[in-house]
This record gives sequence, structure tokens and C-alpha cells, in this order.
Amino acid sequence: MAASSGISTAIIGVTGYEGANLARLVAGHPRLRLIAATARASAGQRLGEALPALSGTTVADVPITEAVPETELVFVAAPHGPAATLAAEQLRRGGKVVDLSADFRFPSPEEYAAIYGHAHPAPEWLAVAVYGLPEWRRDAIRLAQLVANPGCFPTAAILALAPAFAADLITPDAILDAQTGITGAGRSPSRRVHFSETHDNLAAYGLAGHRHTPEMSQELGRVGTGERPTITFVPHLVPVNRGILATCYATLRDGVSEAQVRAAYQARYAGEPFVALSDAPPETAWVRGSNRCVLSLHVQGRRLIIISAIDNLM
Amino acid sequence: MAASSGISTAIIGVTGYEGANLARLVAGHPRLRLIAATARASAGQRLGEALPALSGTTVADVPITEAVPETELVFVAAPHGPAATLAAEQLRRGGKVVDLSADFRFPSPEEYAAIYGHAHPAPEWLAVAVYGLPEWRRDAIRLAQLVANPGCFPTAAILALAPAFAADLITPDAILDAQTGITGAGRSPSRRVHFSETHDNLAAYGLAGHRHTPEMSQELGRVGTGERPTITFVPHLVPVNRGILATCYATLRDGVSEAQVRAAYQARYAGEPFVALSDAPPETAWVRGSNRCVLSLHVQGRRLIIISAIDNLM
Amino acid sequence: MAASSGISTAIIGVTGYEGANLARLVAGHPRLRLIAATARASAGQRLGEALPALSGTTVADVPITEAVPETELVFVAAPHGPAATLAAEQLRRGGKVVDLSADFRFPSPEEYAAIYGHAHPAPEWLAVAVYGLPEWRRDAIRLAQLVANPGCFPTAAILALAPAFAADLITPDAILDAQTGITGAGRSPSRRVHFSETHDNLAAYGLAGHRHTPEMSQELGRVGTGERPTITFVPHLVPVNRGILATCYATLRDGVSEAQVRAAYQARYAGEPFVALSDAPPETAWVRGSNRCVLSLHVQGRRLIIISAIDNLM
Amino acid sequence: MAASSGISTAIIGVTGYEGANLARLVAGHPRLRLIAATARASAGQRLGEALPALSGTTVADVPITEAVPETELVFVAAPHGPAATLAAEQLRRGGKVVDLSADFRFPSPEEYAAIYGHAHPAPEWLAVAVYGLPEWRRDAIRLAQLVANPGCFPTAAILALAPAFAADLITPDAILDAQTGITGAGRSPSRRVHFSETHDNLAAYGLAGHRHTPEMSQELGRVGTGERPTITFVPHLVPVNRGILATCYATLRDGVSEAQVRAAYQARYAGEPFVALSDAPPETAWVRGSNRCVLSLHVQGRRLIIISAIDNLM
Repeated sequence: MAASSGISTAIIGVTGYEGANLARLVAGHPRLRLIAATARASAGQRLGEALPALSGTTVADVPITEAVPETELVFVAAPHGPAATLAAEQLRRGGKVVDLSADFRFPSPEEYAAIYGHAHPAPEWLAVAVYGLPEWRRDAIRLAQLVANPGCFPTAAILALAPAFAADLITPDAILDAQTGITGAGRSPSRRVHFSETHDNLAAYGLAGHRHTPEMSQELGRVGTGERPTITFVPHLVPVNRGILATCYATLRDGVSEAQVRAAYQARYAGEPFVALSDAPPETAWVRGSNRCVLSLHVQGRRLIIISAIDNLM
Repeated sequence: MAASSGISTAIIGVTGYEGANLARLVAGHPRLRLIAATARASAGQRLGEALPALSGTTVADVPITEAVPETELVFVAAPHGPAATLAAEQLRRGGKVVDLSADFRFPSPEEYAAIYGHAHPAPEWLAVAVYGLPEWRRDAIRLAQLVANPGCFPTAAILALAPAFAADLITPDAILDAQTGITGAGRSPSRRVHFSETHDNLAAYGLAGHRHTPEMSQELGRVGTGERPTITFVPHLVPVNRGILATCYATLRDGVSEAQVRAAYQARYAGEPFVALSDAPPETAWVRGSNRCVLSLHVQGRRLIIISAIDNLM
Repeated sequence: MAASSGISTAIIGVTGYEGANLARLVAGHPRLRLIAATARASAGQRLGEALPALSGTTVADVPITEAVPETELVFVAAPHGPAATLAAEQLRRGGKVVDLSADFRFPSPEEYAAIYGHAHPAPEWLAVAVYGLPEWRRDAIRLAQLVANPGCFPTAAILALAPAFAADLITPDAILDAQTGITGAGRSPSRRVHFSETHDNLAAYGLAGHRHTPEMSQELGRVGTGERPTITFVPHLVPVNRGILATCYATLRDGVSEAQVRAAYQARYAGEPFVALSDAPPETAWVRGSNRCVLSLHVQGRRLIIISAIDNLM
Repeated sequence: MAASSGISTAIIGVTGYEGANLARLVAGHPRLRLIAATARASAGQRLGEALPALSGTTVADVPITEAVPETELVFVAAPHGPAATLAAEQLRRGGKVVDLSADFRFPSPEEYAAIYGHAHPAPEWLAVAVYGLPEWRRDAIRLAQLVANPGCFPTAAILALAPAFAADLITPDAILDAQTGITGAGRSPSRRVHFSETHDNLAAYGLAGHRHTPEMSQELGRVGTGERPTITFVPHLVPVNRGILATCYATLRDGVSEAQVRAAYQARYAGEPFVALSDAPPETAWVRGSNRCVLSLHVQGRRLIIISAIDNLM
């Protein structure tokens, strides 16, 4: 077994797609040392047993327990609601938490309750949380005890649209038309993720309003004028495993030229290692298995079109 | 619109893949008239509501009920066990039954119990059942009150191997290596049919013994010397929706030539509209949506290799 | 061989995806009798040989020739340019033509030349052509000698947006974000249709301007005020075989209510057998193998969202 | 960034699937330093330009040239024939070569010519080559100047069957029924790798005799009694990107027990980090992106069945 030094780390909910992927990433991370993981249905097993793809890696022998272990750092890959409770337990001990659920993305417990349909289980920690998009909150993330990992669609959308809102180049509304692979729907079996229902099929969903819409609107408002823009968001489920391709449509303010738009994006992302600008529209295959986001900018008349590709599991 | 004449027909279990496909076939059949269908979870709906792909067809308005309707002909697309009970109810009324489950494929209730793990619910009807492979039982099927529809793998295997066993050209053992699409695993959600678990993945299963093996062995014994051959059967789950491709390996008896094998198959299937012999190995795309079986014959030394392609839903 | 009566029919370019699919449709059509087909690379073969999926159908023995045969009706499934030349040859003989290419979709030869990059090969026939969308041109199609089959994206987009433009419910601009299966890219091998480049990948294309955009704009202008609306169109290539899912975004005019929109669509498509309105967003699996278009309407604030699903091969 | 120490390495044919994958592996390898790569069609570009998936990695700026560069180590990812010529050039300079083609897998130039249909371009180097399967030739590989990388199917088959032949547990014939993803067919566009021809389709090929059969037979003979066993090999093309699943059928010699077989495999692979024995049949998803081979053993009567899973690109 490797890694006898490094930050002691635990993963809560290790057998879902996000948790399993985290385990793989931590296995290859030089400064993190995975010492425990939880997953109710697999408690008592080793990671390599519960997840054969991890057998033969440095984390294969990590035990899966039912109780939350005490470590310097905990990743919470649990559903919203329970996630906040589990995170709070670790925060009270003084540990650091990265929460992958939606539980700490909104500062307002009222807004959270309206969107997620139940009271927030740990509202006392909301003020501590930092929205974890390094390109827009790097300094705050460094110091944070609690990082709220952004949703997958908001990540693609905010990286695509934030520079235009920050430089006030577009009107305060935008359309986000996005396609996501099936892992985005989670690992629990259901008709919606049945191979024969999704294979060779294309479907839109969430037309009555998707939970990620206010998250995008809140964050895009923060980087811009403060006012939340109106976001129309339609996600589509397409038969690929991983990857999100978001096509964003915005309207240029009068007098704004394509050159200005390009300059604003280049300036904003010049030093960012994980955001790239491409002339050709990016494909999700370009970012598979990486934490990069590739963007392309296209202007047709007054319409600004931005294509954004990320891997939803990274 | 809706045929007002023709054989009155019902489908039990219409919302599974087999049942839904049957409904589509009956909709286009000139001599069958679908007047009712059952499916517990959708009772009270019309077919076109429960199965959007059938809206706009001649069967869209057929009501879905909970009780088995009385008709001249009933197709039973229910799981083994309940299927026999439902079939017996219709048989006692004097109606005809085509049972798609395994319940009437074995004449011996003891063998059924050994394979399926429970006593046969209606053994008094076993003697009446005819194994429904028209190429080998056409006359009996015409007169039968109860037809036991063959399993999907046995259909591919028996059509491929029976002529060789019938003409005693091969030794009494054979290997059947088969690949099946995911619809073969049914419509109930489970980890095994989750898109992200099956997409881009290949897996063998059933290595401790598959229920279709004795069915193949029994039927291949009947067409040949009477003695059941030893069948080694390994199915694989591959990421396609429909279709079975079976690769059969047998050993030619001493002195048997490739020409003799070809002649035997051509003679046997000359008048059969739904079995074709191909020089090139058949692909499942060739038979998609049809009830045809395409076979190719290949001899390497003493080894006879037969490729067999069918659509598992037809 | 069946069909000894019926309209004598030929297909030019029968081995492409559109041509092969046409052959399958004609095979099952009660009033059409396929007597010939062309395909340079397969001349001399029978249809069932060149296209194994057609062996065993009523058109299996139709000969494939190089020269255009003389028939009452010809379907032209050739690339734009050659298509017009082949169509004109048949039209001069007095036969009827359905052209699947783009060659007769624009009344103006100048616009055609600007979009397709070459002079129109048979401009004398442009005035005769009728745009073949039955829901909007039924009477003209019945009398036409030359029908220009609409492009696949325009079919999805026009059926989705035309009622709103015809009733002047939306402002004269709209966004069409569409996903298409790979058969839409044709049967010629290329890197773009290589399995390993497209499988598990999502990509936008045509961002510099797609040829279908002016076609949509022209037809949507005709049904509305006469003025061509501005259409922003971004197609995406996704790993399915067949099917187009188009998500349209428009802006309601002041004072227009959701109820008015629904009423306009219901009135317009009430008697149409091949257009259906659905409450839930349609999926491409619902229309696979059919010539139906299923639409759903969604209003978010002033935004009208319309989802449109068709099978691009039908 | 870019390793300035380590073994100077070049890749010939870097834009094929194997070459591109090698580049990715070398990028992450602590002891190899990629300094050049060749690919005729992309000469003059940087790796990150020609292969967007490599932009942002440590090898993104490596130049692509037309001429073979001089380095300590060269990987040859070229077609057989040219591969030998390119390898010989590097060998004459004294450099080490790992050849991924079939050119140095057979010691006999006559056998090579018979299988590949042309004279061997560099027969003087055949005696120097070592067959590069570490589990069976580790010491020879360490000292070799020229390593002939095994074919993908032979890797899966030899690892699966060699322990049984080495311990003389099975009769000298075996069946290898294998499924391979489409990347195994190379990156050149053709009908065979067209998405719409392969998606949702299953096909066997190579039934007239596959080039990998004598390679398997030769190597399995070497580890066993010296006599080459008879191998019946049928590959299938299935719609996944990567991965080979091989199902091997052999016949146990009289008196050999299942326990003996398991003991032989456990003993043989006990210390091997890249070969694992599994109780459940392995799936290709378990080995995706890794160079591991997972095997499972199953005995049915006298039949030994071995399932073997590898990633064909690793």
C-alpha cells in the first residue's frame, strides 16, 4: 500500500458514479491519502471488492464503513438533504468538507427550501460555504472550510457565460440548451436509465423548471451587475455515458463587436489551466476524463452562441 | 381503422418489451383483431397512452384491463409461473393460447421444477402443448390449442444445429456462444440494464448453467437420434437493443464433407420462407424487425461453425 | 413476386440510406410498384443482393441498373446537383418526380447558387416544383408534377414553428437547437461518421451557417406575414442512428397567452394524421420508423419552447 | 511541465488510435520523455493541434515530423510492412524498438509471407525480436533491442490458455470466440466502421481464417509441449469503442480436476501485477484504460471455459 503521508481523506457515498470517480481521482492524487469510505449497502467490503474497476489501484484495500470516519478532509457524495447532515457532522469536528450535492450552493435557506422541497438540515453552515468554481472564486476556495461543488450544468453554463455578463456585453437573458450523458442521471436503476429506453433515443426533460436554473442565475448575477439574469434552460438526455455539451444563446448589447467578445474571454481565461478557447466547436470527447472545459465563441448577427464542453464526472 | 372482423385476440402483459412488440405486430396483422390487453400497472389506460409508440396505430384505443378477457386467441407475455396460471384459465374456457414464457416448453413437470425452482402451476396442460418452432413442428402447431413459444436463444440455436443433428452429421456435443441485446433482459429496471453499466461494456453471464440449455438439448435430441446432446452455452450481454447473434461450434463425424453439410441444410430449409442461408456471416442488422433467421456455414478442418442471426423480439 | 398492378415506380440512388429506406417503404405500399432502381456501384445486382435487409421482401428481385428507367413515378435520392439533372430527364418524359435533394426547394436560382455554390442545373423546372410538406401544401402536392421533399431539419422546424408564425403569435426570430442521428450524415465513410469518433461523443457543427437555415426561413416566411424571420440554427451530431429532436425557442408577442398558443396549434393540426401534440416532451423513440411528427409546447415567462421529434429517414 | 530527463522516445504513426494512445501513456510515464512523433498527414503540426485530446498535456507541444527522429527508444505504430522498414532504420542506428505491428511476431520469414501476403522487408532482424508478453517472456524482454508487441486477440487468448497448455491440462485444441470494439478496426474510414453500419449491430468476421490464429497457435505451442495446438478463432465486431472479451473453450484431459486447473492458474499468475483471477466473469469495463487482463475459470463437465477481458488499446 502506497501513500503513507498526505492529507487524510474520506469519501461519503463511494459507490455512486461521483463517489467512485472521486476514489479513482484520489487514488492518483499525490497529496491526498484515502483512508476510509462509506456506502451503506457495501459496508464491510474493501473498495476493490465493491468496485472492481478499483481493484489493483492504491485504494483497493480501503475499507468501506457505515459510520463517517474522522479525517482532515471529507468529500460528501450523498443526495441533497442527507449530504448537509453528514457534512455538518464533519464540520463540527473541525474538518474540511467538499460537498458534491446541492446543499450549500444557495446562501438563502428559504430559496433552498423552495427549490428542493424541504427545510435545510444545517442552515447554520450556509454562511461558511464557498461556491467551488475556481475560475471565479479561487481565493475564497483556498481558505474555505466548506466548499459547495457546483452542479454539472451550472459549471458548463457559468464558465461559458460569466465573462460576457462580467463585462456587460450581453442582455440579461440567455438560453442554455444542454445535452448530458446518462451518468448524469445517477446510478440508481430506473426506467429512465434503462439501456433499451435510452439507447438510440433523444429526449428533453425538466421543462417545468430545472433545479439548476436558479443556481446558474444566482452565480451569473454575482459576476455581473448583481441583478440575476433570466435563464431559459432545457437539458436533454442523450445516449452517451459521460460528458455535457452546452450550447448557450445570448444577445449582444448594441454596439458590442465580435472582437470585443473574443478579447474579453481571452483576457478572463488567459491564465486558467482548465479552461481553453477553441476556434472549432468543442466535442465532449476532447475533455473525457479531464477536468477541462473547452469553449468556442460564434457570432451570427446580434446573436452570440457559445459552445461549452465538460466531463460531467470530473 | 380498427379491424371489425378477424380472430378476436388479447395480449396478457402488454407493457413489457415482448408484449408491446406483439401489440405492434397484431396491429399490422390482417387476420388478428386485438380487442383487449392486460397490464396491472396501466389498467384503465388505452394502449396508445401507456405505450406512446402505439398511438396513431389501429390498436391505440384498445383498453388495458386487469382481468384476462375472453377471446378466441390469447398471447401470454407474463413471467414463468404466473404465465401458466393465466394460460390455464383461458384454456379451460376453450380458447387458444400462445405462451411466450418457458412454462410449457418441457413435457416433464419434474424437469420444469428442477430448472425453474418451483412446482409447475398447471401440469395438466403440459401434454397438450406444442413447441412452437414452425420449421420443425408446423403440422402440430396448426392443430394445437396451446403453443409454447421457444426461448430466444433456443430459436437461434435449434435452427442452426437441428439439420446437422437430424442428418447425424455431427458428434453429440456442441458449443453455443451467443450475444444478445439488452431487451433480452426485460424491461424491469436493474443495475444490469442500466445504460451506464452496459453501454461500452461486454460481459458473459450464466456460466453456472443457463435455463435455456436443457431446452436446446431436449429439442435437438428430438430431431436427431433421440439422445440429448451435450450443449455448452455461454451467453453475452452486449450494448445493442435487439438481436441475437449465435456462433455454434460442432465437430463433424468422420467422413462427413463440407458439401454434405451444405446439401443437408439446403434441402431442409429449401421451402422455408423465414430461414435463409447466406455465404457471408449474417449480421443482426439484416434481420432487425423481421422474423427471419439467417444462417451461414463454415468448415475449418473437422470443425463446423454456424453463425445464426435473429431478432430476439420477433 | 407481388404487385403486378399499381403506379410503376423507380428509385434513383437506391443504396444510400434514404434510397434504401424508400425501397423498404415502397415494398410495403399498396399502390406503388417498384420496377427499377439505380445505383452506379451496384448495377447488375438485384436489390436483395445489394441490400441484404431487403432480401425476402417483395422488392428483392428488382434489378439495379445504371440508366434511369422510364416509369410513371421516380424518386430521386441523389446528391444535389446531379439530382436536378436526373429529375429533369424524367420530367421531360412527362413522368412525376419526388426529389429528396435540395435542388428544387428554392424558387430562386440565384439563392440556390449562393447557398449550394454552383449554378442550378435545371432552372426551367423551378417554377413547377412544390415544397412537399403536406400539412402546409396538401392541395398543391396532389397536382404537382415535381415535389421537392423538405430537408430533415426544416421538416422538424417548420412543423414546430409554422402555426405560431401563421397566427402571428411570436416575434420574427427564433432559435432552433437540433440533435440528429448519424444516418443524417449519409452513408459515405468519413472520419465524421467513424464509429469510434462519434460513439460516446457530442458535437455541434455548421456554426458558420447551415444550408437548411434559409430553407426554414423562406418557408416560415411564406406561412406568416411574408417577411422571412431570422432563424438561428445549431445542429448537433449525437450517437444515435435515426431521429431528429429539435428544441425551438421563440418569444411571444405582447399579450399572447399560453392558452392562445395551444388553441392555435390544436386548431391547425386537428385533422392532421401525422402531426400529434403531446403534453410530455416527445422522444425520438416515439416516432422511430414512422412518418409522424410529435410536438410539445412549453411556456416559461415570455419564452415559448417547442420540442419536435421526427425520424430523419421517414 | 515537459520532462527534461528520462529516456528520449519517439512514436511513429502517432495519429492512429494506437499511436495516439501511446502518446497519452508516454505523457504520463515518469521515465519516458517524448521528443518527437511522425504522421505523414499531420507533419508540421504540434501533437496538441493534431489530437485535441492531448492539448493541455505534457506532450502537447511535441512536433510532428515526416522523418523518423533519432532517439533512444522508438514505438512503431505503423501498418505491417512499412513498420518493419521503419523499425530496421532505427535498429541499425542502435536504438531500441517496440513494434506494435505484426512484422516481428514470427521467427520464420516464410510463415510471415504466407500469412501477410508479401515478403518480409527486414528478415535480418527476425532473430533479434522478442515476443512482448511480459508474463511469459519477462527476462528476454528486458534485454531485447526489438520487442514485437503481441496482437490484441493473441494477448487475450495466450494469457487465458497458456497456463493450461503449460501444465498439459487440456487437449491440443481450443476455441477462441472473441468480441472486439471498433477501435480494433483502425482509424481509417470505411463502411465497416461507419457508425450507422456498426451501431446496434453484431457481426462475426474472419471466418476464412484470421491472421492472429497462427500467432496464437505458435505462442501456445511454445509454452506447452512444443507442438502447436489447433485453434479455432472467430472474432466478432460489436458496438463498443474499446475492449476485447474472449471466451475460450477447451477440453480437460482425462483425470484433470477443476481444483488442479485453479491451482495451476493461481500459481502461474500469483506474482503478476497485471493479470488477475476473478470468480465472476470479467467485464471489459473493469479493465478500461488499464493494461490489466482479468480471467475467470469455469468447468462444465469436461469443458473448461475461460473468460478473458483486456483493453485492446493498452
